[in-house]
Amino acid sequence: MTPRLAVDIDTLYARLDALLAVNPLPPDGACRLALTEEDREGRDLFCRWAEESCLPITVDAIGNLFATLPGAEPGLAPVMSGSHLDTVATGGRFDGALGVLAALGTLEAMRAAGFRPPRALVAAAFTNEEGARFAPDMLGSLVFAGDLTLADARAIRGVDGTRLGEELDRIGYDGPLKPGAIRPHAFVELHVEQGPVLDAQGIAIGVVEGVQGISWQEFTFAGEANHAGATPMAMRHDAGYAAAATATALRALTQRIPGLLATCGRVTLEPNLINVIPERATVTVDLRHPDEDALQEAEAALAEAVAAVAEEAGVTSAARSLARFEPVVFAPSVREAVAAAAAARGLSARPIISGAGHDAQIMARIAPSGMIFAPSIGGISHNPAEASRREDIAAAVAVLADVLTKLALEKETP
Amino acid sequence: MTPRLAVDIDTLYARLDALLAVNPLPPDGACRLALTEEDREGRDLFCRWAEESCLPITVDAIGNLFATLPGAEPGLAPVMSGSHLDTVATGGRFDGALGVLAALGTLEAMRAAGFRPPRALVAAAFTNEEGARFAPDMLGSLVFAGDLTLADARAIRGVDGTRLGEELDRIGYDGPLKPGAIRPHAFVELHVEQGPVLDAQGIAIGVVEGVQGISWQEFTFAGEANHAGATPMAMRHDAGYAAAATATALRALTQRIPGLLATCGRVTLEPNLINVIPERATVTVDLRHPDEDALQEAEAALAEAVAAVAEEAGVTSAARSLARFEPVVFAPSVREAVAAAAAARGLSARPIISGAGHDAQIMARIAPSGMIFAPSIGGISHNPAEASRREDIAAAVAVLADVLTKLALEKETP
Repeated sequence: MTPRLAVDIDTLYARLDALLAVNPLPPDGACRLALTEEDREGRDLFCRWAEESCLPITVDAIGNLFATLPGAEPGLAPVMSGSHLDTVATGGRFDGALGVLAALGTLEAMRAAGFRPPRALVAAAFTNEEGARFAPDMLGSLVFAGDLTLADARAIRGVDGTRLGEELDRIGYDGPLKPGAIRPHAFVELHVEQGPVLDAQGIAIGVVEGVQGISWQEFTFAGEANHAGATPMAMRHDAGYAAAATATALRALTQRIPGLLATCGRVTLEPNLINVIPERATVTVDLRHPDEDALQEAEAALAEAVAAVAEEAGVTSAARSLARFEPVVFAPSVREAVAAAAAARGLSARPIISGAGHDAQIMARIAPSGMIFAPSIGGISHNPAEASRREDIAAAVAVLADVLTKLALEKETP
Repeated sequence: MTPRLAVDIDTLYARLDALLAVNPLPPDGACRLALTEEDREGRDLFCRWAEESCLPITVDAIGNLFATLPGAEPGLAPVMSGSHLDTVATGGRFDGALGVLAALGTLEAMRAAGFRPPRALVAAAFTNEEGARFAPDMLGSLVFAGDLTLADARAIRGVDGTRLGEELDRIGYDGPLKPGAIRPHAFVELHVEQGPVLDAQGIAIGVVEGVQGISWQEFTFAGEANHAGATPMAMRHDAGYAAAATATALRALTQRIPGLLATCGRVTLEPNLINVIPERATVTVDLRHPDEDALQEAEAALAEAVAAVAEEAGVTSAARSLARFEPVVFAPSVREAVAAAAAARGLSARPIISGAGHDAQIMARIAPSGMIFAPSIGGISHNPAEASRREDIAAAVAVLADVLTKLALEKETP
């Protein structure tokens, strides 16, 4: 019979508190942008906790961290679980940190129980998942999966003008392991939903079926700066209006394509003065859909709308793709293991599509992967007010531990 | 018969060059923000040129400068003409400086011609017309007209944190004259149009009928920052969308209210990240209309649109008025004099409404006032690429000189 591990939730919360304390944001958030001093302090804590529990840390060349509990049969591929320790500028308590600490807690519980499955277990923390400082997001897992070279990743310039490689060296997390050197038997990530669905429906466990496709684009409109009081409406070249009309056209598009999520999160006008017609405007568009065809339809419709808006505003437009991920479907074996573990513990569960990008979708390229979602109160995320109920967190951690245990016991690749 | 003065256009251009040279911006612009060292140098030049032409300078307590050519009958109120020497941060060659130097050139031409009309002539340069460093704009003329106290004006903090009174004292232009001590018989301001109408229609002289009313407002929308990928469209509180929809509703309003100019020049989103639904957005609205009733109709319609947009976006809204000027109608006597002078010189002319604010609209509160517009190439203004054809400038200066001559000959107030 498979043992049921008891992960220490008090310790997990104490560690979440310690991570928050590095650079807290009221009421319950934190800022640890990737590869900053604050990120370094968060990484230092994780490494110290792992090593205090006799779980040796390995660091790869892009700064991904791996704490390992050896298995009984060293020839078998390990089971990996984890997430990330970096945050957005206005980060919450659980986003990323929960998945890393739940994995670490599971390894500790396994060691404490004296249980040694055939496969090793690895608790992972991936570099720069958020993409808030360096684009693209999920960068550490991308390098790990071999889809971004180490050299290209190190050359990336951050929003603050720094170079990723220099920042990685500066905080001392350019490790000796070759990225991708560990090929997991399976990868499982526990994460808060970051959306309102589970909370609104009172469901404890999200069995993540896959991840929406993501298309990030930036549109730049170039017009002419003119006097707001002296330029007739018909003679304007108003880049700001083009940006605004893009945002409203986008909203209309979400009503035409069911399941489409669309956001204009960043808008910059120049010269951004009350009485000058904007000569330049940039607007970012974040499109998401679980179906690749629908996502492509949205991209095409957006391109048409942008062209129409630019013509109406008398400006030129240019588009730039900032990120593009196709929808991901997680491994049925992992999804079934999550659903079974929830059922065995008598927890309510439902299939759910992840709206956010996660390291698990990148790991899915090299190993059977999946995710477990815990409910986010009100769906609030990327916000210092991000919150989840403790009983929901404890339940999700228990399900993760059960799933990792089951996978670590598998002698054969299913 | 009224003499026709020949204002020296070569000297006027040499002086425009000298003003640009204080702090040039390529290709043909300058920066002389009010009460800076650069403004002081510009003022010093004006004072030197006037005094070299035996036109004594008087400075009032808010730094307005007056060069005077005495009239034959000292008991009569003088005719005043002028504009401003300060610029926006990205100023052009003609904005303000043209009106000051054309007035000075007219006084010099009158003296050179040995012509001494009954009324004195005064060439004026008003302090801080642009409002780029200290709000409100048209500050020097407002104090002169008695609608802003000297103490209140001196207490104003600039965008750079300085205090106006201290800056005025520092550059040595806190003069002894009581603001408003000169009550002109009439005031006439020559200015470039700063809009495209005259240039597009190939018309030499704009007979300015009045100045549009101006309503500046700032709207702030407050929603909720949430994850762009995990928050269903129906559950969003997107402040950025509300700002965008305000801008597009505003554009629609200009199609419903003929003559309305409307601009969203400044937009700020928070947190302004590609994958976070904006929780806060501010957008400025610049509304202008030559008719007060229509301007109020636009303000009311905008308030309704903002309320509807906020409800649709699921956010709260707050409005703040940043500036409000009622439309100004210039004195028929001055308008007729401008139209007659243009006709007498065989110049094409048309009535035009000023879209921008000008000192003349403030002077209209204390004296019959009017303006002459010269064409701006392409309507470009508040931009170092601001340009006008030399023949247009010369024609407009000649019309100004003719109008000032006519007014200076009037013995009675019409």
